[in-house]
This record gives sequence, structure tokens and C-alpha cells, in this order.
Amino acid sequence: MSDNKLTAQDTDFSAWYIEAIQKAELMDYAPVRGCIVFRPDGYELWERIQAGLDRRFKETGHRNAYFPMLIPSSFFEKEKEHVEGFNPELPWVTEAGGEKLEEKLALRPTSETMIGYMYSRWIQSYRDLPLLLNQWANVFRWEKRTLPFLRTSEFLWQEGHTAHADEVEAREETRRMLDIYAEFAESEMAMPVWTGQKTPSERFAGAVDTYSIEAMMKDGKALQAGTSHFLGQNFAKGFGIEFLDRDNVRKFVYTTSWGVSTRLIGALVMVHGDDKGIALPPRLAPTQVIMIPIGPPKSREKVMAKCTQVYGELKAAGIRVQSDEREATPGWKFNEWEMRGVPLRLELGPRDVENNQCVLVRRDTGEKMTTSLDNLAVYIAHLLETIQINMFQKALAFRAENSHLHLDTLEELVMHIARAEAAGTNAGWVLGGWCGSDECEMKVREETKFTTRNIPFAPPARKEKCLVCGEKSSQEVWLARAY
Amino acid sequence: MSDNKLTAQDTDFSAWYIEAIQKAELMDYAPVRGCIVFRPDGYELWERIQAGLDRRFKETGHRNAYFPMLIPSSFFEKEKEHVEGFNPELPWVTEAGGEKLEEKLALRPTSETMIGYMYSRWIQSYRDLPLLLNQWANVFRWEKRTLPFLRTSEFLWQEGHTAHADEVEAREETRRMLDIYAEFAESEMAMPVWTGQKTPSERFAGAVDTYSIEAMMKDGKALQAGTSHFLGQNFAKGFGIEFLDRDNVRKFVYTTSWGVSTRLIGALVMVHGDDKGIALPPRLAPTQVIMIPIGPPKSREKVMAKCTQVYGELKAAGIRVQSDEREATPGWKFNEWEMRGVPLRLELGPRDVENNQCVLVRRDTGEKMTTSLDNLAVYIAHLLETIQINMFQKALAFRAENSHLHLDTLEELVMHIARAEAAGTNAGWVLGGWCGSDECEMKVREETKFTTRNIPFAPPARKEKCLVCGEKSSQEVWLARAY
Repeated sequence: MSDNKLTAQDTDFSAWYIEAIQKAELMDYAPVRGCIVFRPDGYELWERIQAGLDRRFKETGHRNAYFPMLIPSSFFEKEKEHVEGFNPELPWVTEAGGEKLEEKLALRPTSETMIGYMYSRWIQSYRDLPLLLNQWANVFRWEKRTLPFLRTSEFLWQEGHTAHADEVEAREETRRMLDIYAEFAESEMAMPVWTGQKTPSERFAGAVDTYSIEAMMKDGKALQAGTSHFLGQNFAKGFGIEFLDRDNVRKFVYTTSWGVSTRLIGALVMVHGDDKGIALPPRLAPTQVIMIPIGPPKSREKVMAKCTQVYGELKAAGIRVQSDEREATPGWKFNEWEMRGVPLRLELGPRDVENNQCVLVRRDTGEKMTTSLDNLAVYIAHLLETIQINMFQKALAFRAENSHLHLDTLEELVMHIARAEAAGTNAGWVLGGWCGSDECEMKVREETKFTTRNIPFAPPARKEKCLVCGEKSSQEVWLARAY
Repeated sequence: MSDNKLTAQDTDFSAWYIEAIQKAELMDYAPVRGCIVFRPDGYELWERIQAGLDRRFKETGHRNAYFPMLIPSSFFEKEKEHVEGFNPELPWVTEAGGEKLEEKLALRPTSETMIGYMYSRWIQSYRDLPLLLNQWANVFRWEKRTLPFLRTSEFLWQEGHTAHADEVEAREETRRMLDIYAEFAESEMAMPVWTGQKTPSERFAGAVDTYSIEAMMKDGKALQAGTSHFLGQNFAKGFGIEFLDRDNVRKFVYTTSWGVSTRLIGALVMVHGDDKGIALPPRLAPTQVIMIPIGPPKSREKVMAKCTQVYGELKAAGIRVQSDEREATPGWKFNEWEMRGVPLRLELGPRDVENNQCVLVRRDTGEKMTTSLDNLAVYIAHLLETIQINMFQKALAFRAENSHLHLDTLEELVMHIARAEAAGTNAGWVLGGWCGSDECEMKVREETKFTTRNIPFAPPARKEKCLVCGEKSSQEVWLARAY
């Protein structure tokens, strides 16, 4: 049992986050630099994210496989940009089995190279294409600044890797998987996202085009929550992935890769949490309903009997219910389970038993309602869906409030940020026009610390001029501070 | 499409195994010493093993968590036998992020140390006990001789780690999990196993008692297919896992650990495979029914229409069915799918369509039957269960035939092995009496290469005298050559 007081989000969002995820027992720090332990409630969120995505991957024709974690150092040399992007962050195995290795082995930061090597052996003919594989695995990036779930030395993820006979099909795959991430984020995580294209400077090392889903956290910062890459023939050429096409000509394949990671757990917390603690959407919550028996000792037996009955009914209906029968005050328990983000609380006292009713309290709104015990499971199943939808709507409203569409020049952006800082509020996201030049992109970054998040496919407004240089803008770009 | 000819099992079992798993596309060799790639059909077997075990773990109150893969070298020093057992096999990370590490980090061979460290932080009171966690993870053991699935540098496994307030409860847990492994192996893998205790020389490094399930492969050798360890207070003392008990006294917890790995995939192949290839039990097979349309081109349309209908019916009934509509002869396809171990083949030709029937061919018996298409899904679901049970019975009969219960002296054992070698058959397993001394155990090993597998809880015969020294035997022990 833990002390429930958290730093307020407005006081120090980072402190709130670190306290919230530890007190909710999602994670703990590990005795290895930048590594965390995923505790059961944190890991179960990942298991539910896995299940939801894995089903979607399989429905779209992908199968899972598993490739070695250790990657020979020479493999990184085969794609020039890739090695430059990842080399600084790699941990290396240099000794094993009591001997120094002849070639050192990297702990995978991502598996394009290893999978590229295997694909070059497996793919011979157009009949072997498309090859649609996915891997669930641990990966390593030895980054300087770490933050639990968002950026850790070791993390868990999935990485899809596909090979195709032609560019059109590979590009379709890239977008299809991005759309799956967006649909999953919105329907299961209740987290609205913008799908769009990354600017060249923010591309994956080795990609031709990178697409992302970007979500707004409660501090107004952006989180890149998933990416999908069109790799063109870069890795195919690096690893010699060739096939004999129908026209009897040997050609290089086109490849894609796409991934989401355990940073989605951090996203869930930062999108839905409040000063009471984390708040979990019902579709992913390990516990959807927490039952709390109430009342004086003399009524205990009667209340507990009814609790057991209600528990059984909810369980039988497939609702993830837990009953808190510990020795502690109801008030303490209310705080505890709000802090842990359980979507719905069910209170049952002696008077409720007499009146064949219970009290339900929603985590998302705080709304308290007295409800008949008749058909309770059906009622609660509907209510959980309502909560799921309301959490999405709340996040959508928050995002709209903190999205600024009417800033047209860099000066206006600088002013906007200064005003927000003075008021102690967040500056949110800004949709700017962009001429497409690196110079303008870098200038915004230097002067405001805002970076380009993505170029949304369906921008909420049109911008005729570049926010920086005022020249004709060919596209809109989301600008924000980012994790 | 591949050449289907395999080396016969009797000619060279090892060659047969290596060819069978590659041609069935369960695995491929990777460009890293002792590592393999789990291809989709191999990985899907693991996914089904995971699903079956994970459900059983959760039903018995365990939850999953995830701990860092990298373990500081100092952690291994805290349990003396543990470090001696694992140190020679460890790969080490010595550099990361462009710098040499101050303390080198091992790639986990197992996680007692890391989890012991975390448990010492989480466990304070008897209220925190029992703590019942499991982890699905990759682990590393840099062994000299490697064999795909059975012994690889990197492999996948689950490791359960539990902490208890008292010894009785911890010992019960150790046995409960062993029983779960045995029940899973027999009912889902159709693989009979002997549950029993390992001799002291075969114990896990750091355990007080180790229990195992042992299975007989088709070459008569034994495979340790799962282990469960009672660790006593060894790791609790090494890592300071203490709790305040109800009586207000600080005590060390008792811990257990238990695991099975991707070697179970190898076991499946070696228990059920034959000269035609691998053979998969229906409950785990990625594809349960392979449909093969037959007949001349002119009847193709009619046959394909019926195939589509039957496919839909089977799919809707939850049967994992695939239809092979490639351009190849039926005979070639029959061999291909027998080699890949699909439990049931469904042939459909023009005459079958006219007669509202199909031909079913069982992989386990070769039996061919003509069956009405009416209620086909129900019929096939039953038939798959029949095949599952028959595969278990076949394996049980094979084990019985190759288990030798009537050898009473080392001389008889030596003779038995010599006779088997002369006849070119396998010597199988031998149940011997054992006085319990290390000397007798070592003597058998030196003279016969047979090692003690386990001391079965329910031996199929009583042995009054030690097979080696002739002294009074307190127990029976399985002796065999082992993987």
C-alpha cells in the first residue's frame, strides 16, 4: 500500500509522470543504466496492446517469426545511412563463452539488416513475394537521456518487415500498416492521432519515406507513437535481395518496415492521466471494475455474500473485475484505485444489498450513479463502452483546444510560445505552412525548440505560405515540442 | 518448393532431424554462431505452446512481467553455485554508446539474479507473499555443441519465479508447475513424459531440488523437456529477500523457478516425425487440414467452387484449414504436406463433387477414407481429436517398447547396449535401482554413456538393488543417452 499523493500535472508534468507510473506499479527502475522492469500491471497493458495489434497483423496476411538478437558489426556497413543513424547507440558483445569474439556483435536496435540478409536467401522468385513477416522482440538503443517507457536502453516492440515485387504494392503496405496503427490507437487506446509523413530530416535511417502517427500528451508535447517506412530498394541493394520476375528478369525487391513499442504504455498514461493518477481505457485496462465492499463489521457477512454473487456475474460476462477486500478504509481504497486508473468503481454496502442496488463511480468523469443489481453485467458492459468513447472524445477535445491553426509567421509563433510560457500554460501544437526547405525547418527548431512532427495527410486547415520564409507552401506541417 | 527426399531415420537420425526441420521451414541457420531463425511455421508452434502454457499459468494465479536482459557481472557472484554453473557460457556486453562500460553486462542465461534483486525491493511483508511472476523472454547460453531448437546460443523460453513465506508452500508450487508441464506435454503435444526428481549432480546451479519432465525421442534418446526448481533460501540469502512475518520476525523467503523453452519444438519433431517428415499433433499444428483440389483442367471450375464452399465451412467451424491451389501435381503436393506434418489431407476431385463426398487421409496412420460432405466440419473436428489421441498412444507405445525394466546389473546394461548396437537398433531407456551415491551414478555414465534422467515419482517397476553396486536401492532412476 502506497502514499497516494502525486505532484500536480500543472506543477511539474515530468514529476507527475514518474510518480504516477511508479505508484500505479506499472514499472520500477532496474539496476542497469536506462533499463526498467515492466511490472505486471504495466506488462499486462503491453500484452493487451500486443493482442490487439497481432490480430490486426494476421488479418492482413502477416505471420510472426523470430530472428537472432545479435547482429554482426559488418551487417551495419551495408546500408550507409543506417549505420550512421544507429552506430552511436549500439551496445556490443565482444566476449562470449570465455573467449574474445573475432567480430563483435551488436544488440539489435532494429532488424532490417539481419532480416535483409535472411530475405536474400529466401526470396528467389516472384512466387516468393510478397513476404509479410512481423517480429515481437526486445531491442536496444543506448541513448543519453532516458525516460521510462518513452526512451529506455532496452525496450519491447514489434517490427514488421515486408518485401514486394513492385513499388506500388510496397507503398500500399507502408500506408496500410500506418492506418492499422491509427485505427488501433484511436479505438483501443482512446488516443487520437494524426497520420502523416515525416520530413526528410526526421526520416528513419535508410528509409525513402517515413510515415508516423503523432499524439498530443497532456502537457501539450507530441509523442511519435508509431512509424511505417517505405525503404525502397535501399536494403534490397545492400543485402542483395533479388528475385526472378515473371518477365524472366532479375530485380531487386522493395521493402517496408513498421513498428510500435512499449512507449505506447507511456502514451496511454500521458494522454489520459490526471492529478489523481493514471486512467486506463476500458478496452486495455487489466482491471475494468473494482468492487469495494462498504459498511460496519456487523453487516460484513451479508455484504460479502452479495459481493461474491455480483463478482461471479460480472466475471461470467467477461468483465475484468477485481474485489478489494483488504483491511483498509473505503476512502483509502477509492484513492488507490483511482490512482491505478481502473475505469469503474463499484461500491456495495448494507443498504445497497437491502435495496438490490449498488453505486457506480466513473474514473473518467467522477460521475456517481445508483444502479439496480438486475442485469448489472449488461449495464456495466455498456457503461464501459461509454467510458471508452468518452475518453477518446475528451482527448480529442483536449487536442483541439491545444492545436493552433491560425499562426502564419515565425514571429507569431515566437509570440504565441512566449505568451504561453508567461501564462504558465502549454503552447500546444501549431499547424504551419512549409515550403519544404531544410533551412526553414531548422530555423523553427533553433528559434522555438518546436520540431516538425509530421505532414498530416488530412490537415485541419490549408496554409498558403511557409511559416518561416513566407514563400508558397506546398504542405502543412505540425510543429510542437516533442518527446 | 523443395525436394522432399529425407535421409531415413534409421540411417542417420541426426541428419533426418536437421533435414526435416529445414525442409518443413520451421527454422533456418542464422549468420551468428549457434543461432537460428524461427521461420513462421516454427514460430507459430511456439505461439501455440505459449498460448497453452500462459493460460495455465494465469489460471494458477501467476502474472507476467518483464525484467532487463542485461545483468551486471557482480550479480552472478551472489550465489556461488549459480556463478560456477553459468559463467563459462555467458556472452558479455563490454561497450555501449561508444564507451567502454565500467562493469560488464551479461546477456541473461536465466533471471534468478535480476529477479532476486527486484524481489528484495518489492517484498517487505507477509502480505506481499506469495509473489507469483512469469517472464517470456530470450536467453543466451554460449554452448560448444549446438543443435537447432535443442541447444542454441539464443533461445526463447518462459521462466516462472515465485517467492513464498514458507517451505511447504514453495515446494507445493515447484510440484504444481511440474505437473502443469506434464499435463501440457501429454494433452497438447501428445508427448508422454516421466515426471521426477533430478539427481544432485544434474541439479540446476543454485537449486536445492530440481524436478523435470523427460521425454523419449524416436532414436531412443532422452530429452529434458522442462524443469522446476525448489531454490530454498539460496537466492533469498544472496539477494536479501526478507519479509516481516505475522509473528513480527524478519525471515528469508523461499523461492522457486521453472521453465520450458523452444526446445519443445525440437521435441515435437523428434517424438512424432517419421521418414516422410515432421508430424504435428492437431492441437498445435498451424495448419490442421490441407485441401488439395484434384482432376483435369476441364473440371477445374466445378471443383474449385466446391473447394471454396468446403473451405468456408471448415474455417467457420474454427478448423485451421489451408487450400493448396498451386500449379503442381497432386502427388507432389501430397508429399509436400506430409513432410510439413499437416495432420489431415482433404482431396476433392470431380467425381467427389458429383457424389457429394471427399477423400480424407490421416498423417498419423496413412488411413484413407471417403466421407460425405454433409456435416463435414463436425466429422473433421472429431477426427482431429482422434488423431491427437492416437498420436499420444503411438508415442506411449513406442516409449513402452523401448523402456527396459528388467536389467539388474551394470553388466546386464553393458550387454544390452552392445546387443542394441550390434543390431543397429536403439538401446532405449533403462530403469535401474540406485543406491543414491555419486560414485555409482558416475560409473554408469563412464561405462555406458547413459546418464541419470530423473527419479520418477511413479516408477513403472520396483528395483530392490542398486544397478551398479548391488547395495540396497532406495529409488529407481531412468538411465538413457540424452540430448
